[in-house]
Amino acid sequence: MSHSEEPKRGICIAFQGEPGAYSEAAALEHFGPNAQPLPCENFETVFSLVEKGRAAYGMIPIENSLAGSIHRNYDLLLQNNVRIVGERYLRVRHCLLTIPGARMEDIEKVISHPQALAQCDRYLRNHNLKSEAFYDTAGAAKHLATTRDPHLAAIASRRAGEVYGMQILADGIEDNQANFTRFLVIAKEPATPGEDAKTTIVFALRNQPGSLFKALSVFALRDIDLTKIESRPLVGTPWDYLFYVDFAASTETTVVKRALEHLEEYAVSLRILGSYPRHRF
Amino acid sequence: MSHSEEPKRGICIAFQGEPGAYSEAAALEHFGPNAQPLPCENFETVFSLVEKGRAAYGMIPIENSLAGSIHRNYDLLLQNNVRIVGERYLRVRHCLLTIPGARMEDIEKVISHPQALAQCDRYLRNHNLKSEAFYDTAGAAKHLATTRDPHLAAIASRRAGEVYGMQILADGIEDNQANFTRFLVIAKEPATPGEDAKTTIVFALRNQPGSLFKALSVFALRDIDLTKIESRPLVGTPWDYLFYVDFAASTETTVVKRALEHLEEYAVSLRILGSYPRHRF
Repeated sequence: MSHSEEPKRGICIAFQGEPGAYSEAAALEHFGPNAQPLPCENFETVFSLVEKGRAAYGMIPIENSLAGSIHRNYDLLLQNNVRIVGERYLRVRHCLLTIPGARMEDIEKVISHPQALAQCDRYLRNHNLKSEAFYDTAGAAKHLATTRDPHLAAIASRRAGEVYGMQILADGIEDNQANFTRFLVIAKEPATPGEDAKTTIVFALRNQPGSLFKALSVFALRDIDLTKIESRPLVGTPWDYLFYVDFAASTETTVVKRALEHLEEYAVSLRILGSYPRHRF
Repeated sequence: MSHSEEPKRGICIAFQGEPGAYSEAAALEHFGPNAQPLPCENFETVFSLVEKGRAAYGMIPIENSLAGSIHRNYDLLLQNNVRIVGERYLRVRHCLLTIPGARMEDIEKVISHPQALAQCDRYLRNHNLKSEAFYDTAGAAKHLATTRDPHLAAIASRRAGEVYGMQILADGIEDNQANFTRFLVIAKEPATPGEDAKTTIVFALRNQPGSLFKALSVFALRDIDLTKIESRPLVGTPWDYLFYVDFAASTETTVVKRALEHLEEYAVSLRILGSYPRHRF
């Protein structure tokens, strides 16, 4: 669907997961409550809907403070004709959900995604709660709502609890409160990054001592601040490395244009995935 | 259990997951078929068994070529009194498992971990197979073996198929064959890294333009080859960044000793997680 067809239902934003997923929460925080999140079965569908113009934007997780970067989504960014037009940091806050009226002492088993269960390990042990892995947090909430079993609980977002009409028995039960996910907003056309901007690039280097140091000198020599760097060995091509770099500046500035020209002297390949307004959390 | 108590059963190696998990395969490839892999429910248990000497080694995944680094295991490396004593690259090769005698045309549903299903997306679509997420690849194989449903298939390792006596209907069904997981071997005592060594360190830097460039200069100026670099923002302490760096040299060499002393001039904190023989895949 496009803006013009259904202007009152808000902007359509594709995300991977069930309604109530953290990606959906990020979409609503970023675009406001009138946005129209569109659940997709997998990331490929999110990219495809954005590329075909059937969704105005896509909201994809790119890194989590505990679980790391999602290389799969970097691959899809390279494979699809889309641009990064924004970013959003979301605090991941887990809730213990039950059917309405259930009490803590009724719970016999807690279901959720293995990562969410691991992140709430201390809470579960303190309350002597047994857990069972489920494929998805919002999916666990949905399953709970379907079975309506008073002895079952799910760990998911507050929003998942609301979407499926479940009771929020406890909130913020994660052991480590520094649990954030960074999402990227993707669209067909590039954004206007503005003054307080970030840029995401991917480049490949020959695997030679000092090659990364040379590549980073193009930013250091121009006082461009890096906000992320990650190497990824290209298995199968043992002489090459892929680097994911974010820096705090816009591609519309002369200094960045020069830095990227300079980088091209060292890099085997270079792709600018997008320049976009920075989200300050 | 310790070596001396049960020498004939081989070295005990703790891993997270069900029997047939990829971590178990990595343990057996690294230590040979006489090793005694010990399945653990979670990574915390793996670390705890190694720390208490109840397992001689632990085998933990640290990064996957498609899914990225597992920050959780970096956290556990920092929190527990263990050392990295080895590494192992394992090619992740997915198989389609059924109960013995089942045919392709019988299959109505394929279960596996969502990441494994995503990695076999093209194969599943080409064969018109519906899929359902399961918490674990080896767990899916175990579930198949329990239900003995001829209309069900699981995606898991060849070893999982063998462990649960399932039929391997197809092998190597992943879309992207550059699918590798790097595992780390942990132990209570440090290893003898030898000539062809790698070292893993973690350090924190103030978030200042050029700080990373300075930090990397300590390696570049001494021709020490970096094999991995990854930044991780320390959410909650916005002025600091954590960096994970691997380099191809041993802490027993003078050049590395000097580089690390030099790095301490810039770093807010520095931890050497281990120096160990490099695995050349």
